[in-house]
Amino acid sequence: MSRKIRMGMVGGSLDAFIGGVHRRAAIMDGEIELVCGVFSSDPAKSKETGKALYLPENRVYNDFEEMILKEKQLPEGERMDFVAIVTPNHVHAAPTKLALENGFHVVCDKPITLNTEEAEEIVALVEKTGLVFCLTHNYTGYPMVKEARQMIASGAIGEVRKVIVEYPQGWLATLVEVTGNKQAAWRTDPKRSGAAGGLGDIGTHAENLAEYITGLKITQICADLTIFVEGRLLDDDANILLRFDNGAKGILQNSQIANGEENDLNIRVYGETGGLQWKQMEPNTLIHKTNQGTRIIRTGVGNLSKAAQVHTRIPAGHPEGYFEAFANLYRNFAIHLRAYWEGKKADPVYDFPTAQDGLRGMKFIDAVIASNKTETKWTDF
Amino acid sequence: MSRKIRMGMVGGSLDAFIGGVHRRAAIMDGEIELVCGVFSSDPAKSKETGKALYLPENRVYNDFEEMILKEKQLPEGERMDFVAIVTPNHVHAAPTKLALENGFHVVCDKPITLNTEEAEEIVALVEKTGLVFCLTHNYTGYPMVKEARQMIASGAIGEVRKVIVEYPQGWLATLVEVTGNKQAAWRTDPKRSGAAGGLGDIGTHAENLAEYITGLKITQICADLTIFVEGRLLDDDANILLRFDNGAKGILQNSQIANGEENDLNIRVYGETGGLQWKQMEPNTLIHKTNQGTRIIRTGVGNLSKAAQVHTRIPAGHPEGYFEAFANLYRNFAIHLRAYWEGKKADPVYDFPTAQDGLRGMKFIDAVIASNKTETKWTDF
Amino acid sequence: MSRKIRMGMVGGSLDAFIGGVHRRAAIMDGEIELVCGVFSSDPAKSKETGKALYLPENRVYNDFEEMILKEKQLPEGERMDFVAIVTPNHVHAAPTKLALENGFHVVCDKPITLNTEEAEEIVALVEKTGLVFCLTHNYTGYPMVKEARQMIASGAIGEVRKVIVEYPQGWLATLVEVTGNKQAAWRTDPKRSGAAGGLGDIGTHAENLAEYITGLKITQICADLTIFVEGRLLDDDANILLRFDNGAKGILQNSQIANGEENDLNIRVYGETGGLQWKQMEPNTLIHKTNQGTRIIRTGVGNLSKAAQVHTRIPAGHPEGYFEAFANLYRNFAIHLRAYWEGKKADPVYDFPTAQDGLRGMKFIDAVIASNKTETKWTDF
Amino acid sequence: MSRKIRMGMVGGSLDAFIGGVHRRAAIMDGEIELVCGVFSSDPAKSKETGKALYLPENRVYNDFEEMILKEKQLPEGERMDFVAIVTPNHVHAAPTKLALENGFHVVCDKPITLNTEEAEEIVALVEKTGLVFCLTHNYTGYPMVKEARQMIASGAIGEVRKVIVEYPQGWLATLVEVTGNKQAAWRTDPKRSGAAGGLGDIGTHAENLAEYITGLKITQICADLTIFVEGRLLDDDANILLRFDNGAKGILQNSQIANGEENDLNIRVYGETGGLQWKQMEPNTLIHKTNQGTRIIRTGVGNLSKAAQVHTRIPAGHPEGYFEAFANLYRNFAIHLRAYWEGKKADPVYDFPTAQDGLRGMKFIDAVIASNKTETKWTDF
Repeated sequence: MSRKIRMGMVGGSLDAFIGGVHRRAAIMDGEIELVCGVFSSDPAKSKETGKALYLPENRVYNDFEEMILKEKQLPEGERMDFVAIVTPNHVHAAPTKLALENGFHVVCDKPITLNTEEAEEIVALVEKTGLVFCLTHNYTGYPMVKEARQMIASGAIGEVRKVIVEYPQGWLATLVEVTGNKQAAWRTDPKRSGAAGGLGDIGTHAENLAEYITGLKITQICADLTIFVEGRLLDDDANILLRFDNGAKGILQNSQIANGEENDLNIRVYGETGGLQWKQMEPNTLIHKTNQGTRIIRTGVGNLSKAAQVHTRIPAGHPEGYFEAFANLYRNFAIHLRAYWEGKKADPVYDFPTAQDGLRGMKFIDAVIASNKTETKWTDF
Repeated sequence: MSRKIRMGMVGGSLDAFIGGVHRRAAIMDGEIELVCGVFSSDPAKSKETGKALYLPENRVYNDFEEMILKEKQLPEGERMDFVAIVTPNHVHAAPTKLALENGFHVVCDKPITLNTEEAEEIVALVEKTGLVFCLTHNYTGYPMVKEARQMIASGAIGEVRKVIVEYPQGWLATLVEVTGNKQAAWRTDPKRSGAAGGLGDIGTHAENLAEYITGLKITQICADLTIFVEGRLLDDDANILLRFDNGAKGILQNSQIANGEENDLNIRVYGETGGLQWKQMEPNTLIHKTNQGTRIIRTGVGNLSKAAQVHTRIPAGHPEGYFEAFANLYRNFAIHLRAYWEGKKADPVYDFPTAQDGLRGMKFIDAVIASNKTETKWTDF
Repeated sequence: MSRKIRMGMVGGSLDAFIGGVHRRAAIMDGEIELVCGVFSSDPAKSKETGKALYLPENRVYNDFEEMILKEKQLPEGERMDFVAIVTPNHVHAAPTKLALENGFHVVCDKPITLNTEEAEEIVALVEKTGLVFCLTHNYTGYPMVKEARQMIASGAIGEVRKVIVEYPQGWLATLVEVTGNKQAAWRTDPKRSGAAGGLGDIGTHAENLAEYITGLKITQICADLTIFVEGRLLDDDANILLRFDNGAKGILQNSQIANGEENDLNIRVYGETGGLQWKQMEPNTLIHKTNQGTRIIRTGVGNLSKAAQVHTRIPAGHPEGYFEAFANLYRNFAIHLRAYWEGKKADPVYDFPTAQDGLRGMKFIDAVIASNKTETKWTDF
Repeated sequence: MSRKIRMGMVGGSLDAFIGGVHRRAAIMDGEIELVCGVFSSDPAKSKETGKALYLPENRVYNDFEEMILKEKQLPEGERMDFVAIVTPNHVHAAPTKLALENGFHVVCDKPITLNTEEAEEIVALVEKTGLVFCLTHNYTGYPMVKEARQMIASGAIGEVRKVIVEYPQGWLATLVEVTGNKQAAWRTDPKRSGAAGGLGDIGTHAENLAEYITGLKITQICADLTIFVEGRLLDDDANILLRFDNGAKGILQNSQIANGEENDLNIRVYGETGGLQWKQMEPNTLIHKTNQGTRIIRTGVGNLSKAAQVHTRIPAGHPEGYFEAFANLYRNFAIHLRAYWEGKKADPVYDFPTAQDGLRGMKFIDAVIASNKTETKWTDF
């Protein structure tokens, strides 16, 4: 179909954080255009955002039900093709379900839902409808993450023995949620964020990254969750021992009270013959260590896997960053959507996280919370 | 004017490098849309590119004259607002002049023209028409470059004494221009690149960055240009001593035979009371050194200048990179364009390189080439 | 006493690792001289080593009993002042005890003994004799470790909340102990190394460093020890959750199968108002992070604590390393010895690890091994 | 000869900087002992230092003439074997000459003398006497410098094309020489330092390092020297273009007004097929770059040259630093001395800078000062 793919958006008013990320990520490669949206539960705010985004007034809606049902009435050549859901966690499930039930594909911010039950419904609905669903665990979109996954899959470091995945941030080191910080407020509110705080917000990214890169599954955990900041309602720190299905061991730690840390998602994987290290804040560098020496693998340099190459836009040394990694998910989603329309299967190199990944993330949260409450060392996951 | 700004593009076929950069940079912030273009001197290739970009057939042209003159005939609500010129250097001046003469604003890739005479014509034409002209010395679009400039202007390191600016690359370490590498071929061809090779391609970025950050002007140079690769027609290495208008001294070196270097533009500035260091390949870090200690300044962290803040999109630790810095130029150009339409002056914080900067770059090339030929130590600039 | 202090050594033949470290560390500051030794359980090897060290033949002994008893017979102006014990773990307790019982001060490599019972005997004997005993947890000798300890003690990062201490190495990634590697052989042999492998060899350094820097005590642990390399007899990997006496949480992990890691002891401490990070492999850098920015603290730069200053020999930028940190322990030991002779108390800034620290390390090993065996989450320490 | 080698020292009172470095470097490997000295031109200060170093009173002299002549009278088994000269520059030549004339070998701090004439005399005297003379251009003692030299010699980066060597410091950014800083005072005083300031103090280290690593000779220079600090008498900054005997080009810059820089000697060398980078402040890392990727070479890791191995004391990850590199010169000097006594030639892998290197450094100073004065671009060296 020789036209741009049309996106409708739920959430993402002007003062939101992740909405602007999704919009830039969606449009930057020229494959997708924003055609409609409901950007806030407050209709005035939604209108104001729509205007700032140069949308026609009649494509800015008051609520997601209206958007989905009215867009469905529009002619094929005009109506949106998919819905991007960028609301707080408690408003993920309902628009996702309504969109899928009405034939719209979906891109949804993570975590997939507020709880496991909702996540299971989404998984079932995606399977039933056969529509394309992408969950934006965006960190898997980086080329060097793709390279690491390919290297491990091809045996470059041998059987994996040890995995250390960390996601420290410092921005919640004090009770900022009562100071008017909107991002902090909903993330620390059980009603809007779910049963987990930092664990759901960033810990699930770490879990997803570890399993994506290693190709392994975590099977047992032993967790110590903490609320360090007095007055906070949800965990702001997690230290977790991991065991994997191949016998590997590991550690997952995330924190939002790690003073001075920005957004330092990072992973180290050690196998029988080598190790790999990647840091999100310097995303174009992948370090490959062996006892014989260290190699710096860089985006765009030398013989990289196809997976790394097709997720890179420019020559080496022109740093691609967070937006481009995020855009890789949207670009891959677009490729799958066009394949869907043509009745074909997309090349698996253009992968993205699925509803199943989202469900796994919810179960991870459940398991960690259970582990944190018990006196028994190991909890199955 | 509550609509996106409309861009027509000259150059940038699918196999080009910088065209895709301009397109992503232009559209990612939702302010600009691509509406037409002539993407190649080969009409078939231009059409193919236009189709891949989902442009209507009638907005893909055979040459820039056709594009500019036909777009001019279109109604106000439809025709392009500005032309983005992303061709090799020898095709910068002609479309720029024709665009300006026909009332279209211009964004032009650097260097502004093939030689100084052409550059002077452009400067005169921009002044005469009053139209908005942006030259994409994109590296000045990084937030930490803005911060460095503000810090020096506000005296944070005292009077500047020493400047070291470097731009090493390694991709031309062998004669790749005869191996079918299109990017190498035109850059090393005097007819398409001009009198300078690496000096014009990357050395002028270094010169522009040094003057932008320090607020100083280079007044004298002493240059040693080299062609290291046998068979090459233009310089692939430059070592240059600098003297500045305040008495500061310095060094500018660029190279395209620095084996293993990717795109390592970097600058160090030492003043009476401190020093600053910035590297393009880790662009979100600015290092502030004094004899009492070192401070790491990071995009999005702490009390930064307004100039740094308004060129940043997301919280700290979510790395913005090359595309976003480039997009800052387009976003600022858009702000100036809307101000132009409203008859206002844009806030100077939203700056971008001008035709004057482009002319200065051409004169720098002239001075370096003259210095390289003479036996006298210092050549005025 | 205006003469060098005289050292006798037990262990440290020419092909040993740590013996040469102790010798260089002891003598480099000109305070101590080697006067005698028994360098191997093989008298021929001991003699050969003594000769290579330019010792007179009559001061090279066949066993430590002979050395201690014969030296005791020598006149005051000639006999050794203290014994340095640099043997494998199972030969720490006996010479230490004999030395103390015969009035010789002792420097002993860590761990203090093979097991807790022996350690308790040493502690009691040190207390009873009042002699000076130094355990070479050498990593606490670095100036930036001293600085970190002082900063935390003075409240520079507020109350400590989270501690992550790591000690990864890769050299035992394969079964090198059967390939003639003498260092690997005794370290993986329960008879010579004790109940723990990597945990005792390097994990106790991590435990000691964490408590030294933070001034806190670990109170509970939850451990997962592994033998990854088939055929090995002792742990080569440890992942441990920590709880501290002030409510802080943490992680300690050490490994000798972390392929490609050299000797990467490192620590991160996060408090209410800031964080600190130190890495042994770049020991002259201490990173101080807060949500307002990052400061690089460097050996010799700016206003450092007295503790950092008195453990630094040369101006900033002349890297002091492993030997100098080790030498700081010997230099401080020498200061204490001279104070002992003068009947004074040495300035506490010249500190070093004691027998009590050694006993604590042995108890840490016991607790980790107990935790590893139980299904209960938390084990008291 | 089965005994330690005996060192007498000229200079190096307790408040000096480099004297303590020489003493530690000399003794740490157990090959050399300090037996006598004249530590200051002030006899009281000399005595005080000798006492602090635990020397017998009768081996602490009032001036170097006395030391050399009296030591000569002592029996073979007692008198010093060589003289270490660690005075300011203007007191290098006289004791060196007297020592050589009286049959003593010499280790001398750099620069070899105050001027070229003196240096030529020393070179002649060394040749005539056949005695062992070592100039402490200590930075060539690092194992990774040895490795870099071996790699280039063996063609690992192809024919060298470009060399950038830098030595920035910041400690003279203000007129500290008038504030009682003894180190600054003599280094900025033409009478004691010679015709050059920073150029002689650190620039010659850079020149020596560049030629040592590359195996090339600088043939032409173009220099711009500056005194930035008002009231200073000698250069505190140098920017110099270089040309080498094989056609390579380069840059040498040194500064003592580079605010916030500690002691950042560093070098980058680019050849036809790769590049090397080394920084003195992280001396155990050597970076090998090619257009296919980057390799981190580390002291003690993998297959290194014999030259690197024999200058390394401990396994990887236990950082050896400035003192150990300095000690490598003394250790090699000791090996040459023993070979001299045995009438043999030492293995050339145990190299150290010679009087010829010292003379070359003096000529470099002359050439730079001449270049700085002339309006002609290139000055022969």
